[in-house]
Amino acid sequence: MSKNPPVFPDYSPGVMSLIPLFYVGWADSVLSPSEVKLIDKKISALGFLTSKDKDILSDWCNPSKPPSKELFKNWVSILKKASKEMPAESRKSLADIGIEMALKTAHKEDSDAVHWHSPDTKASILELEKALGLVSLEGFSHVFSPAQIEQERIEILDKSNLDVKELTAILDDDYPEFRNRLRTLFSDAAFKYPELPDKDDFRLHVLQWTKYLADQGLGSISYPKEVGGEDDMGKYCALFEMLGYHDLSLAIKFGVQFGLFGGSIQWLGTEKHHQKYLKDTGSLDLLGCFAMTETGHGSNVRGLQTTATYDPESDEIIVNTPTEMDGKEYIGNALHGRMASVFAQLIVNGENHGVHAILVPYRDDAGNPLPGIRVKDCGYKLGLNGVDNGRLWFENIRVPRENLLNKFGNIDGDGNYSSPIKNPSRRFFTMLGTLVGGRVCVPRAGLSAAKSGLTIAIRHALNRRQFAPSENEPETLLLDYPSHQRRLMPLLAKAYALDFGLTYLAKRFVNKSEEDIREIETLAAGLKSYATWFTTESLQECREACGGKGYLAENRFADLKADSDIFTTFEGDNTVLMQLVAKGLLSDFKKEFHDEGFKAVWKMVSNQIYSSVAEKNPIATRNTDVEHLLDIEWQLSAFRFRERKQLYGVSQRLRSLMGKRLAPNDAYMRCQTHMLSLANAYVERVVLEQFAEVVK
Amino acid sequence: MSKNPPVFPDYSPGVMSLIPLFYVGWADSVLSPSEVKLIDKKISALGFLTSKDKDILSDWCNPSKPPSKELFKNWVSILKKASKEMPAESRKSLADIGIEMALKTAHKEDSDAVHWHSPDTKASILELEKALGLVSLEGFSHVFSPAQIEQERIEILDKSNLDVKELTAILDDDYPEFRNRLRTLFSDAAFKYPELPDKDDFRLHVLQWTKYLADQGLGSISYPKEVGGEDDMGKYCALFEMLGYHDLSLAIKFGVQFGLFGGSIQWLGTEKHHQKYLKDTGSLDLLGCFAMTETGHGSNVRGLQTTATYDPESDEIIVNTPTEMDGKEYIGNALHGRMASVFAQLIVNGENHGVHAILVPYRDDAGNPLPGIRVKDCGYKLGLNGVDNGRLWFENIRVPRENLLNKFGNIDGDGNYSSPIKNPSRRFFTMLGTLVGGRVCVPRAGLSAAKSGLTIAIRHALNRRQFAPSENEPETLLLDYPSHQRRLMPLLAKAYALDFGLTYLAKRFVNKSEEDIREIETLAAGLKSYATWFTTESLQECREACGGKGYLAENRFADLKADSDIFTTFEGDNTVLMQLVAKGLLSDFKKEFHDEGFKAVWKMVSNQIYSSVAEKNPIATRNTDVEHLLDIEWQLSAFRFRERKQLYGVSQRLRSLMGKRLAPNDAYMRCQTHMLSLANAYVERVVLEQFAEVVK
Repeated sequence: MSKNPPVFPDYSPGVMSLIPLFYVGWADSVLSPSEVKLIDKKISALGFLTSKDKDILSDWCNPSKPPSKELFKNWVSILKKASKEMPAESRKSLADIGIEMALKTAHKEDSDAVHWHSPDTKASILELEKALGLVSLEGFSHVFSPAQIEQERIEILDKSNLDVKELTAILDDDYPEFRNRLRTLFSDAAFKYPELPDKDDFRLHVLQWTKYLADQGLGSISYPKEVGGEDDMGKYCALFEMLGYHDLSLAIKFGVQFGLFGGSIQWLGTEKHHQKYLKDTGSLDLLGCFAMTETGHGSNVRGLQTTATYDPESDEIIVNTPTEMDGKEYIGNALHGRMASVFAQLIVNGENHGVHAILVPYRDDAGNPLPGIRVKDCGYKLGLNGVDNGRLWFENIRVPRENLLNKFGNIDGDGNYSSPIKNPSRRFFTMLGTLVGGRVCVPRAGLSAAKSGLTIAIRHALNRRQFAPSENEPETLLLDYPSHQRRLMPLLAKAYALDFGLTYLAKRFVNKSEEDIREIETLAAGLKSYATWFTTESLQECREACGGKGYLAENRFADLKADSDIFTTFEGDNTVLMQLVAKGLLSDFKKEFHDEGFKAVWKMVSNQIYSSVAEKNPIATRNTDVEHLLDIEWQLSAFRFRERKQLYGVSQRLRSLMGKRLAPNDAYMRCQTHMLSLANAYVERVVLEQFAEVVK
Repeated sequence: MSKNPPVFPDYSPGVMSLIPLFYVGWADSVLSPSEVKLIDKKISALGFLTSKDKDILSDWCNPSKPPSKELFKNWVSILKKASKEMPAESRKSLADIGIEMALKTAHKEDSDAVHWHSPDTKASILELEKALGLVSLEGFSHVFSPAQIEQERIEILDKSNLDVKELTAILDDDYPEFRNRLRTLFSDAAFKYPELPDKDDFRLHVLQWTKYLADQGLGSISYPKEVGGEDDMGKYCALFEMLGYHDLSLAIKFGVQFGLFGGSIQWLGTEKHHQKYLKDTGSLDLLGCFAMTETGHGSNVRGLQTTATYDPESDEIIVNTPTEMDGKEYIGNALHGRMASVFAQLIVNGENHGVHAILVPYRDDAGNPLPGIRVKDCGYKLGLNGVDNGRLWFENIRVPRENLLNKFGNIDGDGNYSSPIKNPSRRFFTMLGTLVGGRVCVPRAGLSAAKSGLTIAIRHALNRRQFAPSENEPETLLLDYPSHQRRLMPLLAKAYALDFGLTYLAKRFVNKSEEDIREIETLAAGLKSYATWFTTESLQECREACGGKGYLAENRFADLKADSDIFTTFEGDNTVLMQLVAKGLLSDFKKEFHDEGFKAVWKMVSNQIYSSVAEKNPIATRNTDVEHLLDIEWQLSAFRFRERKQLYGVSQRLRSLMGKRLAPNDAYMRCQTHMLSLANAYVERVVLEQFAEVVK
């Protein structure tokens, strides 16, 4: 840098009018020698320029002598100064800005400024702008303040084909007004994010939030109308998604209380339980928890060790935890709760009828554990520290026979067990199936977190600049880097696709019938896994894409990532669920795999695989025209083909292994990774179909 | 299940001796009809069995009538009872256990037990065991307590070919005793993990830990001997790895104080600075920070906005933060520190000489910020909350001329600037190059975190069981699931490979010369990125592989994941670094890309690409023999081929784009994703080479 920076003249209005054009032209390095000559020629023909103006401008058009660093900086300071004095709405194009600058200069010089108002002048400059091929103000925007840039963005968006309202309506599905109500609610000062590193403080805060929601009647919207509910499961799904935008600790606390605890009473209990408990559950007067998972048994629910033994003498059920490892673990609401819906092996007259749920009060009104109950805090967790997860052990706790949630298995006054479903395995899966709502809702809240993260990362990428191509140029916007686009844009597209997929799942779930419940369970297992893995992946990418700013708690990734991390585990470990999906596919959604065992499935599948081979492989056509590749019909058939091919492949492998007299379970073990791949192909096909459907 | 479970007889010693065998045989479903017949035959020949024994055992050998659930459960309870009474060392085989059980029974029956001590008896049972093909106690171990299982594991490990001591020696590289000293140190009660959710408490705790280490003389091992150091950079690298096993907040706090702040004095300062500051820095009597990154400029260090203007009148340097966005951010030690090594544009006589470092005291002894200084806590972060990151703004702060760290740029008494490196760009990269130690150390500590996570996850997988193939069998060990192996084993292998790669880097770094410093910088940039991405990926996989347990803070994934998350960003954003790697490769490690620009690089690369095409592609041979695929020489040539092919591909693309008169920078932008892929291929080739080297 020279020691004495050159002093520039005060430019005339004519020169000022073209500075924006020259600045952007040189800054973006868009000027080739031939273009520069063209501009020089066009300038010499402009009537509103003095010959002195033309000399200066011609000098700036010399391709062998690009503007000096100092001249360039002078332009920047002129533009910065001008931008401050100029309302945002007047800056529609470089020509607009130039004319605005000329007007100011003309006024200052007190000379005749009339031709700066002439449309012809503007048209001439616009023509030059067009010749330069400048289509956006982007390369220019760093000289303006963020607020002005934001204003321009909104204007650009307004002019684009994207109808924000229409898109919002699609994403809001059936509950636009309800969602707006929630948006207002979460904007309330009461829902401001607190900074409460101590888990006990944070938990009380989230409890308070939950209470606010219950006071708004939101706790019971999925419950029957007879107990004050709205009987609207679809609305509950929408609510859960909206909770996910606010805070995941709140979403989970809410889901445990109203969805899991309340849901177990609603779906596994009968009229007497509804009448007795649901109203207080919905209003949060009865805080309850869902005590299913044990330390020793999580995914394998059938293997739970807690026992519930009927004692005919006293007409009571005795709930007992055999060993330390059989205690209930990770139980949400355990610290604040009063009553637990305990899943245990139900033993009547010495016979084990499998897992049933029993309501067990475990604290008195003052919050002290009842005799024989041990409660232990799970302590700090990776995330969701606003949820009070704890451990529970029961030492021969006696509850009345009526506390058995008896929709699928009852003990009558004579102490005899009966069930509407005779087959114990089918009974077990039917009971669990009623609770599939968790798997429908959890991925929605997870996707909300991913959407929040994507919004933050993309906004950041539209504001943050780093590294200039050369010293004369502004730094490059992060989102203008292809690597940055590749990081974020496919994730954004997938977030939309998954939104549509999950909305489809929710609708299927709400309208489920006896016939399609198995299919919905497979769908829920697959979408839950796929969407929650997507949440983990995309939040990680977004955090990294925001650099150090992404690491600060105030920018939300700390909570978004940590809170959503467990989504891949709870409501069923993703890897386990994806194997269930593959097994479901192998039985072609028609049979209950769990009951029938592998051989029946195998027979059925082997009848099908040959027909699928005969079908044409659309990939084989090797057509790589853009039109063909973007054709949704072709994409769909490719996804369908992949799924069918994998189904066939896995089936072949299984048959071959069993031909070697391998036990069915061992054969499955050997095909495990192929099965996971099949499940993935299935989910992606379903999601693409839904995406195509909504786009249509 | 029948209402009245069958009552089983008290078995004779002979039957007892074979129960372990029958249990494991049926439990693992290893018995085929022909095997069962063989065993039946062998049993009928055993002299130590009574005919009544043989009847019972023959009944258990009926392939068409496998043992009932009740009989199976009876076996389990007999075995559980026996295991409690049996010392672990007596259980070497199923035969041992059987004989032990027979002895107990014989004693109880008070009959003659002499043949249970006979070696022949044991040999006969061992023969049966062998006929069953049972090689491990694994299928049996769930009836024993965890302590006993652990004992068995150690025995198995002792018997295996794996020489743990030898492997440890390899991993400990040149500092085995030093590492053992650190292992002892970190086992001390003082280094127990605290539960301090409040960041201020946690920060003070980590400061105390850092003080303990400084008191041990560990703060100055990389400093010159003249100031009390050991002048041992290799040892510093080993230390940093070991810190990573303990706690990452501690590692970063330690690295900021001794590596970054002290390192800037050591490498950018001269003798006078060493004498004045390094001793107090190493002892922690002078707490300092490394104030490089600004809010507006992180990766783009050359674009820093803070100025350091020399004032000849007072012979002082004036350090100033122009705008709010130009404040220093994420500065570790900012809250506890007293002095900052501030990176700023050095302006002497109106001329900007580029970024230099200046020592600026910013707090008094009482800890109050000096006038003109603003310090702000960065607040809670996603992780590393034991490190006091803060923001710093300087309002025309005056420091003596001597505070300029003047190794690469000096201001003399007459107020004239001089530098041993005339080219400003080369000077900048030389200065930054001296600080590459951070990129050598950070991935080592990150890898330590990944190794901790892998250890936890694999141990868990060797203890946790979930889902039984059938009701009669024990649940399956997690690590016996192929999907679980596929999740963890490749990551374990990669951790070893990266350990070797990073040790190689450290050695190259310690022994660096003028000639190979550019190559080492490329290597450091690539390995830093690759290893820290690996850390993020593997810790995520490990957390998920541990399910709910992985989510509890007590099991360490919360801290391991959160603390290491920023490793992909600090010491250079990974995506930016990988582009540097690719550019380095394109200039074939011979030229300084940054100074010379693209065209010189292009010329050189284009001379090379054609020769690489001529070489033979080892993949083209399509040899899929196991021996061939496992051949390290073939693997190496495949990795080398891939790298060369990608280098060629990127070069071609660049040439083609520049042929269309695209500016070099724009051409790079369009090739960005290909460049990232090339950098990846390069790092993997280097790591595989080092892995092969160590294995050899």
